[in-house]
Amino acid sequence: MATTPSPSHRVWANARLATMVADTGTPYGAIEDGIVIARNGRIVFAGPSSEVSSIGQAEVIDCEGRWITPGLIDCHTHLVYGGDRAHEFELRLKGASYEEIARAGGGIVSSVKATRAASEDELFASADKRLAALIAEGVTTVEIKSGYGLDTDSEVKVLAVARRLGRERPVGVQTTFLGAHAVPAEFKGRSGDYVDLVCGPMLDAIAEQNLADAVDVFCEGIAFSPEETARVFTAAKARGLPVKIHAEQLSNLGGAALAAGFGALSADHLEHLDEAGVIAMAKAGTVAVVLPGAFYFLRETVKPPIDLLRQHGVPIALATDANPGTSPLTSPLMTMNMGCTLFRLTPEEALAGMTRNAALALGLQDEIGTLEAGKACDLAIWEIERPAELAYRIGFNPLHTRIRNGL
Amino acid sequence: MATTPSPSHRVWANARLATMVADTGTPYGAIEDGIVIARNGRIVFAGPSSEVSSIGQAEVIDCEGRWITPGLIDCHTHLVYGGDRAHEFELRLKGASYEEIARAGGGIVSSVKATRAASEDELFASADKRLAALIAEGVTTVEIKSGYGLDTDSEVKVLAVARRLGRERPVGVQTTFLGAHAVPAEFKGRSGDYVDLVCGPMLDAIAEQNLADAVDVFCEGIAFSPEETARVFTAAKARGLPVKIHAEQLSNLGGAALAAGFGALSADHLEHLDEAGVIAMAKAGTVAVVLPGAFYFLRETVKPPIDLLRQHGVPIALATDANPGTSPLTSPLMTMNMGCTLFRLTPEEALAGMTRNAALALGLQDEIGTLEAGKACDLAIWEIERPAELAYRIGFNPLHTRIRNGL
Ligand SMILES: [Zn+2]
Ligand SMILES: [Zn+2]
Repeated sequence: MATTPSPSHRVWANARLATMVADTGTPYGAIEDGIVIARNGRIVFAGPSSEVSSIGQAEVIDCEGRWITPGLIDCHTHLVYGGDRAHEFELRLKGASYEEIARAGGGIVSSVKATRAASEDELFASADKRLAALIAEGVTTVEIKSGYGLDTDSEVKVLAVARRLGRERPVGVQTTFLGAHAVPAEFKGRSGDYVDLVCGPMLDAIAEQNLADAVDVFCEGIAFSPEETARVFTAAKARGLPVKIHAEQLSNLGGAALAAGFGALSADHLEHLDEAGVIAMAKAGTVAVVLPGAFYFLRETVKPPIDLLRQHGVPIALATDANPGTSPLTSPLMTMNMGCTLFRLTPEEALAGMTRNAALALGLQDEIGTLEAGKACDLAIWEIERPAELAYRIGFNPLHTRIRNGL
Repeated sequence: MATTPSPSHRVWANARLATMVADTGTPYGAIEDGIVIARNGRIVFAGPSSEVSSIGQAEVIDCEGRWITPGLIDCHTHLVYGGDRAHEFELRLKGASYEEIARAGGGIVSSVKATRAASEDELFASADKRLAALIAEGVTTVEIKSGYGLDTDSEVKVLAVARRLGRERPVGVQTTFLGAHAVPAEFKGRSGDYVDLVCGPMLDAIAEQNLADAVDVFCEGIAFSPEETARVFTAAKARGLPVKIHAEQLSNLGGAALAAGFGALSADHLEHLDEAGVIAMAKAGTVAVVLPGAFYFLRETVKPPIDLLRQHGVPIALATDANPGTSPLTSPLMTMNMGCTLFRLTPEEALAGMTRNAALALGLQDEIGTLEAGKACDLAIWEIERPAELAYRIGFNPLHTRIRNGL
């Protein structure tokens, strides 16, 4: 390859690359003696050093043999919320019943109350700490859902905070409107009316201010029915917004297949997904996002059908599901370990799940997720001897440097 | 209380204290408006600010309402070893059988080989990184076992590295000789001969150089029998060394009761412990050290009998079990979360398990483990609103400052 270096070039030399490009015939799309060349924040070359004849006046960073992976992508989080649920966690372990916890103000109600009461600055500050934990382990893009506001002003507020995190912190933020996360207390017994609000005024306000990149629904017995889900998806599509779904976490309502019918970017959780759902996802190109943190925290026993997903070629992504109630997890590396330990993903699948396939779950596969010319130069540089270490170790952060848009 | 401050005093004021003193009638032995006063590295007062009339010329640190707990104690680790087992982890997840892994050089054999081949400096450097991870989450004392050397020179080498970590890093290190961790390949089929080596020349060399503070045995079908364990314990006692045991992890051989009979400091793992074992431990004052990291990593299903331990008043400690084969875990906070999530400890029990009861498991209860006058001033200062957050969050480190011996 002929490169035309200029001072605006940055070059990472003497590196081992886990390009995560699919189907190269090499695990991790690995290149042992590799180099990454970036110009103006984008990769112009990522491949074997032997293919580069000269790099001219670029700034050259000697990676001393370290591994470079694509920057990690956390494609499913609920990072912006008020309060926490540590007290509820403690009460439950001390033997309190769900009723007692509800009486003590626990459950999602408490997060909604705290989120509504918090100012934008307060929400920003608390989410910023969680975001910093993700960034410290190599995350360069994160998806953030609303869903703890559950009224128009509060949902707008949460998504505005998510956008602000993306502007003020060196990380890409994709926002997802999840007004249909739970039926708020004031609509108890009137979920249809609440869905009217979500599909109408709420979505209008959010679309008008361009606050959401996608729309999500929690389709479950304890949340919204498939019919209600379809109404929200129809409203989203009418506004040109792609959809995602929380489906088949606690039971099989056919949510994944429903979402696939709407061309959903992803269906997430999927513990109770059946083969028909897998096939529908495969046909639609809907990504399976598995969330082992919630599985772990809730002590679930039914696992997502990983083998079926593999057989039918459904791309598998992996995310923290960072949220106060069911997955207070802000470590992508721990998520990868849980993906392997609990769901029996291979370390390569786990890393693909937080890079290439996570990009796909966000519709950003042309922008991020692999080390390839034309994509953003988002890199994670690791002090490891082999990529499997990222998933193997627990509570150890071998990140050496994180690069976002070449910086 | 009348204090006589001097410039050598250091004072942590405006703090909330989780003293972890037992039986104060308040969860966590908590004091809402608290102060810690130290002189020459030892606590001279830890209690309500209202009991302190003047602090004179001390250096005063304003904690701004943050919580102070005792420095964390990781009372069961295998921190010093060569190599890692990431490749084996990956092979297994790709479907390799145990035979294939053994043929590829996996299993404990690979750790023993790498540990024997490594220089002291190499072992120091690799363990130092893992130790740094523990320290970064507030650990002020760590126990380190040998057991990947399995010949006299290598066991001495590993324990010397552990001692050196204690000298060169700001952390207390207690060392434990675990020559009886596995029968090395060269003694295959001759475990009795290997126990002779452990009880004789190996223990002599280690005792002579004062390299071990305790002696441990892995009592299990795949390791050493109760009879062999008793031989090692007898040899340890003859040299004045207290004993510990890895017992009842995979089956019930009565190891915990056996160890209690030798006045063991602790019996560790204990998934298959029965009530007779619990009662024997209670009588002897032997601490139960539970290790949820290994339970998680091995996907075990039988849990230690926490309720029986509670009923009989056996103190429960909690540790990482940091080791390459079954618990590559170097996060005390994740360990606390696993203790709660997987073993249903309360957050208070989890914190006691890494402070007061961990000190007891090391025989250091007069030195560390609680915020009390007379003990070392080992503190962890946390950016949290309530102590339960330490166990609730996953992959988030709220440590603000760590103090070891008042510094
Ligand atoms: Zn979610
Ligand atoms: Zn152990």
